[in-house]
Amino acid sequence: MAPRAETICLPPQQLESWTGRMDALCTQIKRTAKLMSQMLRSWVTSANDPESGFPLNNLPYGVFSIEGGVRRCGVAIGDQILDVAALDRMGLLKAHGTLSRASWNDFMALGPVAWATFRAELTDMLAEGADPTALAPYLVPMAAAHLHMPFKVSEFTDFYASKHHATNVGTMFRGADNALPPNWLHMPIGYNGRASSVVVSGTPVKRPNGQLKSPDQTEPRFGPSERFDIELELGAIVGVASDGPLSVQEAFDNIFGYVLLNDWSARDIQAWEYQPLGPFQSKATATSISPWIVTAAALEPFRTETPEREVPLLDYLQEPGPMLYDIDLGVTLAPQGQAAVEITQTNYNEMYYSAAQQLAHHTSSGCPMRVGDLLGSGTISGPARENRGALLEITWGGTEPLVLPGGETRSFIEDGDTLTLHGLAQGDGYRIGFGECVGTVVPRDEGT
Amino acid sequence: MAPRAETICLPPQQLESWTGRMDALCTQIKRTAKLMSQMLRSWVTSANDPESGFPLNNLPYGVFSIEGGVRRCGVAIGDQILDVAALDRMGLLKAHGTLSRASWNDFMALGPVAWATFRAELTDMLAEGADPTALAPYLVPMAAAHLHMPFKVSEFTDFYASKHHATNVGTMFRGADNALPPNWLHMPIGYNGRASSVVVSGTPVKRPNGQLKSPDQTEPRFGPSERFDIELELGAIVGVASDGPLSVQEAFDNIFGYVLLNDWSARDIQAWEYQPLGPFQSKATATSISPWIVTAAALEPFRTETPEREVPLLDYLQEPGPMLYDIDLGVTLAPQGQAAVEITQTNYNEMYYSAAQQLAHHTSSGCPMRVGDLLGSGTISGPARENRGALLEITWGGTEPLVLPGGETRSFIEDGDTLTLHGLAQGDGYRIGFGECVGTVVPRDEGT
Repeated sequence: MAPRAETICLPPQQLESWTGRMDALCTQIKRTAKLMSQMLRSWVTSANDPESGFPLNNLPYGVFSIEGGVRRCGVAIGDQILDVAALDRMGLLKAHGTLSRASWNDFMALGPVAWATFRAELTDMLAEGADPTALAPYLVPMAAAHLHMPFKVSEFTDFYASKHHATNVGTMFRGADNALPPNWLHMPIGYNGRASSVVVSGTPVKRPNGQLKSPDQTEPRFGPSERFDIELELGAIVGVASDGPLSVQEAFDNIFGYVLLNDWSARDIQAWEYQPLGPFQSKATATSISPWIVTAAALEPFRTETPEREVPLLDYLQEPGPMLYDIDLGVTLAPQGQAAVEITQTNYNEMYYSAAQQLAHHTSSGCPMRVGDLLGSGTISGPARENRGALLEITWGGTEPLVLPGGETRSFIEDGDTLTLHGLAQGDGYRIGFGECVGTVVPRDEGT
Repeated sequence: MAPRAETICLPPQQLESWTGRMDALCTQIKRTAKLMSQMLRSWVTSANDPESGFPLNNLPYGVFSIEGGVRRCGVAIGDQILDVAALDRMGLLKAHGTLSRASWNDFMALGPVAWATFRAELTDMLAEGADPTALAPYLVPMAAAHLHMPFKVSEFTDFYASKHHATNVGTMFRGADNALPPNWLHMPIGYNGRASSVVVSGTPVKRPNGQLKSPDQTEPRFGPSERFDIELELGAIVGVASDGPLSVQEAFDNIFGYVLLNDWSARDIQAWEYQPLGPFQSKATATSISPWIVTAAALEPFRTETPEREVPLLDYLQEPGPMLYDIDLGVTLAPQGQAAVEITQTNYNEMYYSAAQQLAHHTSSGCPMRVGDLLGSGTISGPARENRGALLEITWGGTEPLVLPGGETRSFIEDGDTLTLHGLAQGDGYRIGFGECVGTVVPRDEGT
């Protein structure tokens, strides 16, 4: 049958060439959009410092108190916190009372339109040129504030979705031949964690006790973990409840924001307990998060594609657009009384699966999600040793200890060590900072 | 060195014989105590029927409403519900307002002394001989009430602690040689489940979609589970928050009560997803619980020992006394429009680990527990085929289908099937009933 007049027929090579050029153009447009997104200037002058993590572009949400006063919602701007709880109480905002609570959950529950309205309102009020008279009395110096958990964690899920991490750990735990489980390239592997153990940055972390048995021992014993570790992750916060399967786009739209997340892990407890039903007490001691929720809105200019698929994904996991973010991440280690030293640097764009894909998979069975659910990305490791997100990988199971500047070595965390996660998205002359996620490891019987 | 005068020396055989006799005496005393615990009679005459699951000895706690009215706390007695929310509101109780809530969490948070006081108060007021005048107006026929979730599930943990079940499943999933994982006799294996998917008896259960790949297929596909199953369990409810390791005795004391629990499981989704981090979407569709919380106090006469240890337990898991219960359990299956048929019968005393041991292990890493945490026992299977707590085991992975009285066969659950868990502790002339835990499986796109 001859082609109809309005049909144009092309050789496949031509189509492929065009597709390639369109892809290149799309990449260029995205880069341009990112560069065009410049610093928004504020009358809070400290926010205009290009080194500040909290310019007007960011406006992350936290919960703070002053000198033992009541916990309430605040928004970071430069080196100040805007007391939005007080503004709300005074009727100066459209947020209707949700901000005087000790968490952002009730605000999140208002939904995406309210999120956007509130953000636009704050951006207008804090912009350079706006009249500071009404708001200035509600600025609190960040240095004077105590930061608390920014939201109530409903449930906590942790994933295993960085390919470099999964390959490294798999090689150590199951051998190079079985490193990447057969399902790994088909789905974001996840497991349920423990919400009650999520704590805010600054909370001391007690070294856990647990059952320990190395392969050369015949019986387990009970005692303090000797292989206590960090996991460098980003946590995605669900802001919209759902009660059935979500598409990847719906999942993306339901994510309110992100925090740094350190999923403290006892590797020796884990090795003995995790078969056949997964990690349990090895991950239940503490999970630290940074105190500021960086909104998905603030990260919009930093969206980036997940890496090319090695095998095609099933339809329900396909992304309609770039849903990862370009966020530089790192960890420092400071032995007690000593200076901090950077032990790893990586980027959130190393993830094989985005948080949107993880959330879509999480709901694929019909699992209901709630406002305040927290999804850990899984440890984020890059290709090189200096990009690995856990000591387990950096020291290759303790066989290649880190040598610190003072000459001390570290296979795993020692009591008194302070581990600090940091992260930022670098824009054109401004940055979206996550602040820090800090934890000092103390022996089981001490600490608070 | 000669023994001192006040020291008595005995040959080991003599000591062993005495120990054996003391054990036998202890068993006899326990049996006698159980037999001596007789029915407490009530002026609510339906509670005095030996076939009633809700005599004065039981007094289980639920949440009910009538004709779309407000949800509130109630206590089952015979075929009636005592509207304790109304009694509390009228100042007729010492419970101080917690009972008008739509869950028992706030009451649980009052702690064990309040639990005991309330139970004693109810027992006195409802006892035969007490004046019914004040209370009678607050009795609601159970038949007229709608039952809801009796408590808000904070977090849900599921265990794997019946040895027959673990052996059966292990044999099918990993072969007879690796059936019982090496850690199994040393710790109650558990994993975190999903609290948001816990529903009350009567809620329809939608067959989940998920990734499916049988070993003979090269690629996974996405579709409805073809091996959807039940798990017959008992759920223990944590009534006291804690923030560090608990002893087994402390754990026992912190458990408020028990419900029947059906942890619906998609075996095909599970088989493909569970390595290396455990079950995730295979268990996230729904977990049904019975609507009445049977208190630990009501079960006190039915305490029984865990089976003899095959290897000694580490100190932190040793029980100071009998902490299991003698509770008969069973499941019926009713194809759509057909009569229900019993498909299994077992007993909670088949557990290798008690809920107290599970909770102690759960806190061993320092994991904080909250009021309303729910701990599933894990599937409870006895030694014979007719004692197995899941279809996976009953039909041996679908290879030995059940033949139903009408001639139909079942390897796994079909759409329209209604599965009902039931349970009771049989005393001397009375029984502590759990009521039923019912769920009908509907296709993914139907249901509520």
